[in-house]
Amino acid sequence: MIRAGIVGGTGYTGVELLRILALHAEVEVAVVTSRADAGLRVDALYPSLRGTIDVVFSLPDIETLSQCDVVFFATPNGTAMLMAEQLLVRGIKVIDLSADFRLKDAQEWSHWYGMEHACPDLISQAVYGLPEVNREAIKQAQLIACPGCYPTAVQLGFLPLIENGLIDIKHLIADVKSGASGAGRKAELATLMSETGESFKAYAVSGHRHLPEIIQGLTFAAKEPVGLTFVPHLLPMIRGIHATLYGQFVTPAEGDITLADIQALYEQRYRHEAFVDVLAPGSHPDTRNVRGSNNCQISIHQPQGKQVIVILSVIDNLVKGAAGQAVQNMNLIFGLKEDAGLKIIALYP
Amino acid sequence: MIRAGIVGGTGYTGVELLRILALHAEVEVAVVTSRADAGLRVDALYPSLRGTIDVVFSLPDIETLSQCDVVFFATPNGTAMLMAEQLLVRGIKVIDLSADFRLKDAQEWSHWYGMEHACPDLISQAVYGLPEVNREAIKQAQLIACPGCYPTAVQLGFLPLIENGLIDIKHLIADVKSGASGAGRKAELATLMSETGESFKAYAVSGHRHLPEIIQGLTFAAKEPVGLTFVPHLLPMIRGIHATLYGQFVTPAEGDITLADIQALYEQRYRHEAFVDVLAPGSHPDTRNVRGSNNCQISIHQPQGKQVIVILSVIDNLVKGAAGQAVQNMNLIFGLKEDAGLKIIALYP
Amino acid sequence: MIRAGIVGGTGYTGVELLRILALHAEVEVAVVTSRADAGLRVDALYPSLRGTIDVVFSLPDIETLSQCDVVFFATPNGTAMLMAEQLLVRGIKVIDLSADFRLKDAQEWSHWYGMEHACPDLISQAVYGLPEVNREAIKQAQLIACPGCYPTAVQLGFLPLIENGLIDIKHLIADVKSGASGAGRKAELATLMSETGESFKAYAVSGHRHLPEIIQGLTFAAKEPVGLTFVPHLLPMIRGIHATLYGQFVTPAEGDITLADIQALYEQRYRHEAFVDVLAPGSHPDTRNVRGSNNCQISIHQPQGKQVIVILSVIDNLVKGAAGQAVQNMNLIFGLKEDAGLKIIALYP
Amino acid sequence: MIRAGIVGGTGYTGVELLRILALHAEVEVAVVTSRADAGLRVDALYPSLRGTIDVVFSLPDIETLSQCDVVFFATPNGTAMLMAEQLLVRGIKVIDLSADFRLKDAQEWSHWYGMEHACPDLISQAVYGLPEVNREAIKQAQLIACPGCYPTAVQLGFLPLIENGLIDIKHLIADVKSGASGAGRKAELATLMSETGESFKAYAVSGHRHLPEIIQGLTFAAKEPVGLTFVPHLLPMIRGIHATLYGQFVTPAEGDITLADIQALYEQRYRHEAFVDVLAPGSHPDTRNVRGSNNCQISIHQPQGKQVIVILSVIDNLVKGAAGQAVQNMNLIFGLKEDAGLKIIALYP
Repeated sequence: MIRAGIVGGTGYTGVELLRILALHAEVEVAVVTSRADAGLRVDALYPSLRGTIDVVFSLPDIETLSQCDVVFFATPNGTAMLMAEQLLVRGIKVIDLSADFRLKDAQEWSHWYGMEHACPDLISQAVYGLPEVNREAIKQAQLIACPGCYPTAVQLGFLPLIENGLIDIKHLIADVKSGASGAGRKAELATLMSETGESFKAYAVSGHRHLPEIIQGLTFAAKEPVGLTFVPHLLPMIRGIHATLYGQFVTPAEGDITLADIQALYEQRYRHEAFVDVLAPGSHPDTRNVRGSNNCQISIHQPQGKQVIVILSVIDNLVKGAAGQAVQNMNLIFGLKEDAGLKIIALYP
Repeated sequence: MIRAGIVGGTGYTGVELLRILALHAEVEVAVVTSRADAGLRVDALYPSLRGTIDVVFSLPDIETLSQCDVVFFATPNGTAMLMAEQLLVRGIKVIDLSADFRLKDAQEWSHWYGMEHACPDLISQAVYGLPEVNREAIKQAQLIACPGCYPTAVQLGFLPLIENGLIDIKHLIADVKSGASGAGRKAELATLMSETGESFKAYAVSGHRHLPEIIQGLTFAAKEPVGLTFVPHLLPMIRGIHATLYGQFVTPAEGDITLADIQALYEQRYRHEAFVDVLAPGSHPDTRNVRGSNNCQISIHQPQGKQVIVILSVIDNLVKGAAGQAVQNMNLIFGLKEDAGLKIIALYP
Repeated sequence: MIRAGIVGGTGYTGVELLRILALHAEVEVAVVTSRADAGLRVDALYPSLRGTIDVVFSLPDIETLSQCDVVFFATPNGTAMLMAEQLLVRGIKVIDLSADFRLKDAQEWSHWYGMEHACPDLISQAVYGLPEVNREAIKQAQLIACPGCYPTAVQLGFLPLIENGLIDIKHLIADVKSGASGAGRKAELATLMSETGESFKAYAVSGHRHLPEIIQGLTFAAKEPVGLTFVPHLLPMIRGIHATLYGQFVTPAEGDITLADIQALYEQRYRHEAFVDVLAPGSHPDTRNVRGSNNCQISIHQPQGKQVIVILSVIDNLVKGAAGQAVQNMNLIFGLKEDAGLKIIALYP
Repeated sequence: MIRAGIVGGTGYTGVELLRILALHAEVEVAVVTSRADAGLRVDALYPSLRGTIDVVFSLPDIETLSQCDVVFFATPNGTAMLMAEQLLVRGIKVIDLSADFRLKDAQEWSHWYGMEHACPDLISQAVYGLPEVNREAIKQAQLIACPGCYPTAVQLGFLPLIENGLIDIKHLIADVKSGASGAGRKAELATLMSETGESFKAYAVSGHRHLPEIIQGLTFAAKEPVGLTFVPHLLPMIRGIHATLYGQFVTPAEGDITLADIQALYEQRYRHEAFVDVLAPGSHPDTRNVRGSNNCQISIHQPQGKQVIVILSVIDNLVKGAAGQAVQNMNLIFGLKEDAGLKIIALYP
């Protein structure tokens, strides 16, 4: 039985980790921390967990967490980097759902996150936890930087085209839409029902923190710098990310390639992936079909048979975009079946 | 392995049965019928099921269904009563999620459902599938009439008070609100997003089909006829029922009884029930906390310490109000653990 | 031209006042105050007003407000009572949308609002601004206490029955549902999209601040104390209140009275009211049909012909439940047509 | 007083026309037709109109409509083209909100709309009713083809860039999102609350009927054929369109041009337009800020100072995208003030 701890268990990624881990046959949730709610039963804050989680919030101290085999950070940015080292030296695996270890360049991290990085030395040790790219490294990792929600949807959508040099990597466009839970469980005007409901808008068009993360991942795949325009939008709903990706098709030297070839390429690329599902040609993935599940559903289009390839990629931002992917990483690290605890069917309707 | 068939697999209760049964360790979904979609893969219609259900819709004929140990009817009213007998004579258990066998009085059934009952003789044989009332009878049953969604929420909320003679049974009020999925997967103007979204209304105030079913159940508990005003409302959301129940408190002959006594009574009544959860005093159950789960959460209030008792009772109309309860019945019939396949945590947020 | 000031122009009732007054032919919005946003253009905060309001937020001081003929308080409770007297002595009419002057009993006010009342002497001078009850007094008033949103919907629904002694006033039940905008524009967890969306719950069952206000109004109509159970609920939508009201029918001494008689009574009671609309028998008012308008739509039911009368009453909580009613009061005070600036048709769909 | 008729008054654009025209000081709604509901009062179907529209649905025959000065077609595609000529010969102005006269090429129309065009001769006579492009022609027109909702948002967003040759017109991308009311008031599974709520998807990526209309309009502005990728999406809400437009910036021969220059260009282009509002630099228009109003709000971005220009353009699909624009056209034709009846402030929140 793996003993798991969750630091910052009161946010949406925290409670989502609890939803998944509570039913994971090989995990015991041993510690859940919260500064604000220490002493309170977890299921008093989250009645959805009644009967499945018998834990009280504790203060986030290293001694308490030391009884764990793995510690998840479901904290705001800037917390994991303060505590990770102390856990790692005790041999505890660390899986960070925040952004602290996602960017390989500490200076760029500081630029986007507005603070100095507290442990830049650890950055190189951290493995970017996108199993569809880094599976073998993850299995050996002590410290995992779980990808952001937008970066997961965008990378899984673009990767096969980029890895095969089929699109002009200087002119990528990612028009991405997210449900409000992506903003977290914070008392803010902007995500009130009365502000977000029955309305839609873009935000952070001038630059969103997930931009450098996506560029880093796609550049790694392309083996040269990519040019990306990334526009995030806020949907009047709770869960779900839909990425609409545009690439200019580049016919390879060896000759013609058709939409059917690209479809086959995607199916081939992901055929052993438990959580990436390439839909039949002509499909339009719907975020509801992955709601609550760890799946990414993808479809490929070439409108009017022209030069632009359109990839549609959907995930649940709290699952494949956060807690589910974190558990997938945990499974890999501990040698469990990759889908242990993650056989969850989306809630439709 | 129990071989299960689903007649009418294209509606919301059908797909919800599939979501639950696909992960039920002791069930194999052998047959799913649909007249309209026969020949189509089930997961082509419901992409949320991709990778978990490998079945093609077939025509609803008795021969095909005869390979099953149990057949669920997730059909419109009036279908199960035409097929149940042929399955029962073959020794197949029948669990009907429609209303065909819920009312014990065939004439009243005809009055409310607008058609003759096709097999009135079977009615007396049918067991009303509310495990919290009829558990032992369910275990022996061949034919189960699964309760309606409103009746489940209302009965579980009122039962302890009525069974103990603590409220005036002549003046019960049930003000109940349901998500739009309760109307089913039918092409109708009234449940369009543009009609139902951002709006709220009562409907069928003069008389809803679930009224006689609730009266029948409460009368059975009270051992004398009850008087009930039942007003259903349509919520601008998909899943969830919230019953707000009002009863005039009747102090029993033996003396004073307090809200704390009533709280204790509810906790006692449901302490062995896996799926009925009495919340702490002062709580307000939220439908999201049971969304996707088979739970009913209940809280008890006595506003201003006055004579009126207010019971709040929430369920997911598609789970405890339909498919989950049906599987709970199946588990009882086949001697499985009552919560087999039903350990599902609500999707929050 | 009436010069209007709005104190507290950054909340939802404030911006709704602006929406209405900006197009009111006989009003000029002269002052809009906000401590937090002083110096900012109003339409910078509220882009929906661009092109219609050319005002900058100012600090809420008496001198600035003294240029107005009327000042609306769209402030949190406890602000209007600190400033009203200084405006009144300057001959400025005060229309308070907050609760400061709604309750005639200062001690009860303190009990429910958790603070001492700052000017109890003004309370008796304040006129409760429900035109359908107090029209003549409103015309003469210097200080208006605008009714709360729930109290407006409940009183308009119950009044004809109570005024005519047709229901048992000791056993009134008001099961009322409100959109999230009723909670105001405040950064709070409870009204986040992720908390409120796709979910429904009751709240404050033990006692809500609008309870004493409703009891006060109904008691005034009944001429003796009423007994009321009031249960508010939060809807997963933005605007709208739906009151479902239950009364035990009392046949009057003079003999039989039918549902048709009650229908006629309601039509008669409200036939000269521009903003109360009694629907045809059998109707179910839908909150969308009053969204954005100053209307209250009402229908009357007697389920199964039994003893319980069910009244359905809907308003837009921000219009007839707040800003619209405030303008209706202003029109009366200044001798304008009662519907001036209020001929707004609900936004459907 | 202009006598107006509406053919097809039971859909969402029909009822929206009624909402606007009922309060238009210079219009009398004389005829509203509906085959299905002839004989029924209009406000019986649409209770939001009670007290403002005193008309009964009539059958759509030419004689009845001949009493009108102008007839709006709010019908499904294929109806206006059967009746327009008979009205035009009687000197009645025709404003068609459907697609019948939008495309100048009858064969292309047939290709996209799946039927023969019934009166190709009228097409050249029809004026495309986008006042921001065709104002003078509209004033002289007998027959107006109102633009589609997507085409309105996309054209208004792209026009200043294209008219000034600032972007590569061969590689335009329009990623556009619409509320569910765009699908009309039709009993269809796809737009049920349970299908559309809490979910998001693209649709018709291979080719949507509005594609040729947008290309026609942009090609007219560019004076040479444009290349456009257009991906429509369905939002889980009722009203609103948000277009996110991407263009590759082309520095003109005469030298550098900055984002500030483009901002100034947009402000200049639309400075006399009552209904197009260019927001301050850095803004993100929100669909709620135009909900119910005839406004288009636009902002311009150049993410990271790179080569891609991103234009955000929002409208209410039923107002500027349909009924409001139709009334704007009517005002122009009859020499009224262009904003007569259209001074409507968006409903926020």
